Amino acid sequence: MLSASYTGARTFAVRAATPVPPGPGEVQIAVAYTGICGTDLHIFHGDMDARVQRPAVIGHEMSGTVAALGEGVTDWSVGDPVTVMPLDWDGTCPACLAGHRHICQNLVFVGIDSPGALQSRWNVRSDLLVPLPGGLSLKHAALVEPVAVAVHDVRRSHLAAGDRAVVFGGGPIGVLIAVVARHAGADVLLVEPDAGRRGLVAALGFRTADPTGSDLTESVGRWTEGAGADVVFEVSGAAPAVLAATDVAKVRGTVVVVAIHPRPKPVDLQRVFWRELRVLGARVYERSDFERAVGLLGSGAVPADALITQVVALSEVADAFTALEGGRAMKILVDCRSDDEETR
Amino acid sequence: MLSASYTGARTFAVRAATPVPPGPGEVQIAVAYTGICGTDLHIFHGDMDARVQRPAVIGHEMSGTVAALGEGVTDWSVGDPVTVMPLDWDGTCPACLAGHRHICQNLVFVGIDSPGALQSRWNVRSDLLVPLPGGLSLKHAALVEPVAVAVHDVRRSHLAAGDRAVVFGGGPIGVLIAVVARHAGADVLLVEPDAGRRGLVAALGFRTADPTGSDLTESVGRWTEGAGADVVFEVSGAAPAVLAATDVAKVRGTVVVVAIHPRPKPVDLQRVFWRELRVLGARVYERSDFERAVGLLGSGAVPADALITQVVALSEVADAFTALEGGRAMKILVDCRSDDEETR
Repeated sequence: MLSASYTGARTFAVRAATPVPPGPGEVQIAVAYTGICGTDLHIFHGDMDARVQRPAVIGHEMSGTVAALGEGVTDWSVGDPVTVMPLDWDGTCPACLAGHRHICQNLVFVGIDSPGALQSRWNVRSDLLVPLPGGLSLKHAALVEPVAVAVHDVRRSHLAAGDRAVVFGGGPIGVLIAVVARHAGADVLLVEPDAGRRGLVAALGFRTADPTGSDLTESVGRWTEGAGADVVFEVSGAAPAVLAATDVAKVRGTVVVVAIHPRPKPVDLQRVFWRELRVLGARVYERSDFERAVGLLGSGAVPADALITQVVALSEVADAFTALEGGRAMKILVDCRSDDEETR
Repeated sequence: MLSASYTGARTFAVRAATPVPPGPGEVQIAVAYTGICGTDLHIFHGDMDARVQRPAVIGHEMSGTVAALGEGVTDWSVGDPVTVMPLDWDGTCPACLAGHRHICQNLVFVGIDSPGALQSRWNVRSDLLVPLPGGLSLKHAALVEPVAVAVHDVRRSHLAAGDRAVVFGGGPIGVLIAVVARHAGADVLLVEPDAGRRGLVAALGFRTADPTGSDLTESVGRWTEGAGADVVFEVSGAAPAVLAATDVAKVRGTVVVVAIHPRPKPVDLQRVFWRELRVLGARVYERSDFERAVGLLGSGAVPADALITQVVALSEVADAFTALEGGRAMKILVDCRSDDEETR
């Protein structure tokens, strides 16, 4: 087997090794594809070295098949196509006891805080596995995790059919939120400064706007007959978008905070007060979101081929990160299959 | 009759005049007491001159009795004790049509955008009147409007019996929120840097904390067995409190934005995201909040005497503002009764 270990800023070590058999309660997965996300890029930059133990096999967006079963595992069979929901909660903290296990106060995020999927064989606790339907390709299935993020964000927003939604940020999560919101019956405007990304989003049939161009609040006002947007998703992490998000929301509208904001950012609290807005944080997903994401991908509701802009070999994993840094790629997958499996 | 008109920064003109009879659909109120709030103080400072037409009779927290009825008014009688809910919505904007008339996009706030209660006779559209019970003194009844704000804020937070709530800011609205939250069954901690105000709040039986002292997040953590507060009310308008508000909230906790924040302020959006917080704006009140506030004051649930720190004569109205500027007063009332009515 091959594995790619993050060893420090901008460096991966790719090594060949003999697979360790799965332990009791574990399943060994033959990893097919592992997607690289913004958090992985932060790790690659060394920005999360305080959290990530090195060397670290990272990666948490993946698909694969069951390769071997550990002792006591009876509900999976070798060959089953699977993905992993990478959340490991303690079940005992106040958040878990209140029913919010997905944001456990001591959450172990698999692939960041514990070993992940950038390897051709991965031993995972069997309760983290999520089954994939036969008709879903393993390439598309590598998008289940980010689609689950989008499903969670849209569900948390209480978006309803007929709503007008604005998404700030045209990266993979922003586009997936737009896709899921449209599938839920919303009319969606995606705001993105990069013309290339706007073009891709427009090609998927969405309204787009350039935030550096004409007055966005005015144009959203015209679009919504003076009301403002029902739901706004802040997925850009950009300070001007944080201010614009409250500007374009209707009275009693909802703003969902999806992006990572490492430092506090100015928010127009006067607008929050004046329009009685609801600003909601939304993080990761619950099991039902994950299963719904599998369903959406399986039904073809997600334009997966348009979103997967590149596939690189595990031995060239650093290339995936440098391509992502360019800012033009959408989703980049790492092909983690062993040579003998590449015909699958 | 006497009336006090705001004529420009720090200046009131007090004039004697002959009362104008109430127009069709109007009621003439013999105003008893008018409270001065933070917004009135902003007007006094000239900070709202762009909005307030001068000369302006301001004032929107009041009590009085019906003195005369205009043509077509049949549901009120002379002598009825009343207060006024000072919101005049258009009924046709998107917010009104969606059922949120209290935050109408073209709301006329009576006493700011149209004539108010700093006069001994006040003609008001009869549908804005709210009846007062016989057992409620007119002095206490002047608190109905700020109590209604607190009722609205607590209702909007979905605070439940047994919740732990933190209130930032020990001014009149902060204390009233604490009172209403405790009445709803919450355990309340009020955070206030001024020792005098903390003393008053502690005398009302509340937990208090000095935000400039020991680590607030740590002490709220201990108080809540590591969970954090269920509900946080930001009533201070202070930048450090905005950051602390998200720090002390539990996973999926609620932060209610009550204070005025004229300029955008840094918010810890990472914490909003990480704990899936809900940040809610809460502004003014609905009719049901106003009626509930009348009920709370009538039942003695609000420590009105402790909150009313001073009563000044209408002829000395500027003194009320300078006393309020001192920062130590809680609620200051202006006695608007004519000489012949002062025995009431």
